[in-house]
Amino acid sequence: MIIVLKPQATPAHASELIDRIAALGLRPLHMPGTERVVLGALGDERVLESLHLDSHPMVESVKPILAPYKLVGRDLHPADTIVSLGGVDFGGERIVVIAGPCAVESRDQLTRSAAAVAEHGGRVLRGGAFKPRTSPYSFQGLGAEGLAILREVAGELGIPTLTEVVDIADLELVDRFADGFQLGARNMQNFRMLKAVGQSRKPILLKRGPAARIDDLLLAAEYVLAEGNPNVILCERGIQSFDTATRNTLDLAAVPAIKARSHLPVVVDPSHGTGVRDYVAPMAKAAVACGADGLLIEVHHDPTAALSDGPQSLYPDQFGQLMRELEPIARATGRSL
Amino acid sequence: MIIVLKPQATPAHASELIDRIAALGLRPLHMPGTERVVLGALGDERVLESLHLDSHPMVESVKPILAPYKLVGRDLHPADTIVSLGGVDFGGERIVVIAGPCAVESRDQLTRSAAAVAEHGGRVLRGGAFKPRTSPYSFQGLGAEGLAILREVAGELGIPTLTEVVDIADLELVDRFADGFQLGARNMQNFRMLKAVGQSRKPILLKRGPAARIDDLLLAAEYVLAEGNPNVILCERGIQSFDTATRNTLDLAAVPAIKARSHLPVVVDPSHGTGVRDYVAPMAKAAVACGADGLLIEVHHDPTAALSDGPQSLYPDQFGQLMRELEPIARATGRSL
Amino acid sequence: MIIVLKPQATPAHASELIDRIAALGLRPLHMPGTERVVLGALGDERVLESLHLDSHPMVESVKPILAPYKLVGRDLHPADTIVSLGGVDFGGERIVVIAGPCAVESRDQLTRSAAAVAEHGGRVLRGGAFKPRTSPYSFQGLGAEGLAILREVAGELGIPTLTEVVDIADLELVDRFADGFQLGARNMQNFRMLKAVGQSRKPILLKRGPAARIDDLLLAAEYVLAEGNPNVILCERGIQSFDTATRNTLDLAAVPAIKARSHLPVVVDPSHGTGVRDYVAPMAKAAVACGADGLLIEVHHDPTAALSDGPQSLYPDQFGQLMRELEPIARATGRSL
Amino acid sequence: MIIVLKPQATPAHASELIDRIAALGLRPLHMPGTERVVLGALGDERVLESLHLDSHPMVESVKPILAPYKLVGRDLHPADTIVSLGGVDFGGERIVVIAGPCAVESRDQLTRSAAAVAEHGGRVLRGGAFKPRTSPYSFQGLGAEGLAILREVAGELGIPTLTEVVDIADLELVDRFADGFQLGARNMQNFRMLKAVGQSRKPILLKRGPAARIDDLLLAAEYVLAEGNPNVILCERGIQSFDTATRNTLDLAAVPAIKARSHLPVVVDPSHGTGVRDYVAPMAKAAVACGADGLLIEVHHDPTAALSDGPQSLYPDQFGQLMRELEPIARATGRSL
Repeated sequence: MIIVLKPQATPAHASELIDRIAALGLRPLHMPGTERVVLGALGDERVLESLHLDSHPMVESVKPILAPYKLVGRDLHPADTIVSLGGVDFGGERIVVIAGPCAVESRDQLTRSAAAVAEHGGRVLRGGAFKPRTSPYSFQGLGAEGLAILREVAGELGIPTLTEVVDIADLELVDRFADGFQLGARNMQNFRMLKAVGQSRKPILLKRGPAARIDDLLLAAEYVLAEGNPNVILCERGIQSFDTATRNTLDLAAVPAIKARSHLPVVVDPSHGTGVRDYVAPMAKAAVACGADGLLIEVHHDPTAALSDGPQSLYPDQFGQLMRELEPIARATGRSL
Repeated sequence: MIIVLKPQATPAHASELIDRIAALGLRPLHMPGTERVVLGALGDERVLESLHLDSHPMVESVKPILAPYKLVGRDLHPADTIVSLGGVDFGGERIVVIAGPCAVESRDQLTRSAAAVAEHGGRVLRGGAFKPRTSPYSFQGLGAEGLAILREVAGELGIPTLTEVVDIADLELVDRFADGFQLGARNMQNFRMLKAVGQSRKPILLKRGPAARIDDLLLAAEYVLAEGNPNVILCERGIQSFDTATRNTLDLAAVPAIKARSHLPVVVDPSHGTGVRDYVAPMAKAAVACGADGLLIEVHHDPTAALSDGPQSLYPDQFGQLMRELEPIARATGRSL
Repeated sequence: MIIVLKPQATPAHASELIDRIAALGLRPLHMPGTERVVLGALGDERVLESLHLDSHPMVESVKPILAPYKLVGRDLHPADTIVSLGGVDFGGERIVVIAGPCAVESRDQLTRSAAAVAEHGGRVLRGGAFKPRTSPYSFQGLGAEGLAILREVAGELGIPTLTEVVDIADLELVDRFADGFQLGARNMQNFRMLKAVGQSRKPILLKRGPAARIDDLLLAAEYVLAEGNPNVILCERGIQSFDTATRNTLDLAAVPAIKARSHLPVVVDPSHGTGVRDYVAPMAKAAVACGADGLLIEVHHDPTAALSDGPQSLYPDQFGQLMRELEPIARATGRSL
Repeated sequence: MIIVLKPQATPAHASELIDRIAALGLRPLHMPGTERVVLGALGDERVLESLHLDSHPMVESVKPILAPYKLVGRDLHPADTIVSLGGVDFGGERIVVIAGPCAVESRDQLTRSAAAVAEHGGRVLRGGAFKPRTSPYSFQGLGAEGLAILREVAGELGIPTLTEVVDIADLELVDRFADGFQLGARNMQNFRMLKAVGQSRKPILLKRGPAARIDDLLLAAEYVLAEGNPNVILCERGIQSFDTATRNTLDLAAVPAIKARSHLPVVVDPSHGTGVRDYVAPMAKAAVACGADGLLIEVHHDPTAALSDGPQSLYPDQFGQLMRELEPIARATGRSL
């Protein structure tokens, strides 16, 4: 850690800080420059946090050298992690497409939508039973009934399921019905929830929050791994920006940026990432081209009747066409669908 | 609601949509322009939501006319609402300063910090027992013990308390110890929590999320009011932006913008809003000048020892000086501290 | 155009506005709703601008129906435009890679860098002679001498050149040496410059500004077309966001979003879009996968010696490898390099 | 400067870099940590720039210690600078209100608008003759005729003028008519223009660009000072954010943040900063409360007829009331209007 002192700091201030660093068992460094005195501290930066150097009135800035996460980082774990969700591997050679409607609306709706997913090569079925909605007047999901439908329909097709948990109280219930927990963008920093799913061994698909830096996402994943659950799949789904042409701004450079920092698999959600049906296919292809390990795509058998996210849901035919177009791109990157 | 059709939409498409609007009991309008056909629908726009017109492949865009919230809006409730928290009124002539340390760290720490708050005119004591922290390696709060300390210290000083709830499971516990619930920025769209606190009658201080538009904040408050709890205080605490000179970008124009739309009281948190001790006082004064009903300020008896948010915590003397400087500004706006 | 009146507007206000709309030769519409009176105006919305309805104290909001641009839009010009730059077509079946160093630094540097570009299939040579730099203490470009070197080196290789114009005063000079004008992100809304290059017939590569919405970019291009120059190539090069993992946030969804609105060709600059050498190749591939008509890539024979943008410049070998990897992706999208 | 090496860097890489630092006459430091090797370089960081260390394949990151600007910074120039514009001082005890219409539209319009400005205490008259407009179909200003009107009207009232320069070619013309040059947000990084106005001695009001960090604004000012013109007034006018309730997000914390870094005076433009007439007064008061040295406010004798920015222009009466309300706030901060 590098500690830059304010111009008005005296040698006595520097000595005091050096002593505090040494007292923690770290090796202090003293670098008196022409305009600023700079201190260094070599060792575990998490230990240094207890000194709260950034609160000191004579400290101008504190610059960490190491990443604030350990378990999710590549430094100590250079090889890619493969996470298995109900028998489907994320992070290996095959790119996984998770697909399905935004929300489970009825037995009939899910049966039809899921049939399209399975027919065209989707390997995990998604569908929300609990829907976090911006307005209290919007459809909020079928709850437990929705979970049962999801389980049943997926069982008939023989594919695993992924569904969102919005509250810790539902965790046990969802655990009985789903093969993986999705943590939504609004829950990315629900730290209590992160700890709770960290005590499970089920795979967690963790979505990046709309205002989360990549380091924030990795620290959120660190919560899960620190509790003992190594099965985390990270998901880029668009960040908040000023442009209104898309619902969110899909930050695809997050894919190589995360891969450079972490060994965890990364999937991309072009449906929420754009909010516009016609842009889903181009961005799905782009995600595969830049190295994503999977995709999360909203498909509805009749988007004009969808109770949520209809404008960004693909028609079954569109999904089929996309899957056919993804194949050669996957091959071009040395992978398969 | 205004519905703009795509250029390729035929008269048959327009008729179909007009029929669907009329079938809901709303009055449809047909406006055939030179380049686009535009439809209108007069009546309750929430009813229209069930038509999912924005999912229709021939619809280019849908433009709502009315605000998506009703209970928090000024249209049906033009007069300012006054919310009482433990006998202290928010939204009236007096501006309320809520102050205290970021986290309750110990009996001694809170006693000293709270004494400074009360001495200089802070009228509500804040202090976190459960701390949502970006890193799992940071201090996470004292939990129940922290709540007990908060209650005891505030009781001795005779002032009410405000503290954050981070999980629904803690609600009953916090309810016993605190006079108001704070919902943090990361929980602004925890809709389950919003419904839960909506069933209480305790005042809720609802912080704007870092990626939340003003309408998102108002819709979050609508969740609480829709459950029957009218006691919501809104809080501007900075939004996510690209500038790194401050921790967040304090959006003070949100104060008049919220007041134009809603009857609820608005407070400002210049501590999180800037993240820099030296900017807290200027922004606190600015908040009062532009019409805020209150302030939320972090004060610690020894910020260099603070376990969280030390860099943005005021020293007791700084808080005292700020309170003295706020007075004439409050008076200049026709109010008092 | 839809005009929403404030709740306090009287019938007299509505009549006054209706009369003003009719006086312009447009057809007014009156839609009295339960909570708001809404007016409509059918016809050319640019005519309506002269009414300044949004300034009226009884107008709550004004919602345009049509895009604010005409010449760059697809409504009146549905077919894709092909722009030829020195004999190289943008917008057709072949994807064009423009490459070269950020700045022309010397005869030797450009010769070596350009050789790598040409050897591996780059079809247009880029290189800046005038460099807009954030700091006055950074290298500012070789000016006229740089232009001469660029011309000479490209001439030897038989490929056209693209270079940035930073000031109208240089336009004649650059015109003599380059086959296309690049307008940088910081000049996207230099409207005088846009008009000046609009009077040329040379192709303009127009970069999106870091704070520009897609509509702002299209309006900037409208300036050029309105002056008579139809040869505009749009360039996505990253927008300003809060994340610091990359220099800018490359908004690849802008590619399909622009294509939906405009007939002009679109290229992507993954070098500025990420600022990180290792992310250039993944994002270049993603750009091709989502439909970009070309790429703009920084290549330097020795990036560690580059006077600007070294951290994002590819080594010649990396560029060669990227070009080989792009080929199958181009083919997968039905195009070629 | 601190240089963090990649984990795979060898001792030989470290030695090579240390030698290069020493060869420049700077003092190198070697800090081998447990997970990373960190190097330091003490001395003028601008010299180091020539090493392009951030381009080196074994360098993970480079962390500057000192601010990248010198002349505008407080380190070498701790006292506040006072800039005189036509006899009116910015940066002293009195807060200066610059006011007037967005654009000069006619002799009559400016006479009436300027009379209101002068009557209520505005001390500098603003008015644009060259208008940068997002759309080519919007009013672009009266040009030279507008300048002449501005000069004449201001002369009759005996107050100085400020007007925007949009192109270097107009500099001489504007110089003859105006007491200060305004550089608009879109020209903040027009470096050629910054150098050109740096060769004048006229005061420059430099507006922060919508995507500019505070350090970018200060570096832009450094361009002007580096050419010899110390008379720069900085202007916060709102940055680009995701919220649509206001035209821009007025970043008032920029006022104390700039004052902490620079000795230059700072003014705030609440008109562009909000884009909404009703929010101008609250934000003007907030700006004064947090320490701004002046305000830039749009006033029009009849905003509903304004050819640009009508929705954010104050009526003369509103301006009068605002000026009366600003007085006690200025007094409360120890200053006067």
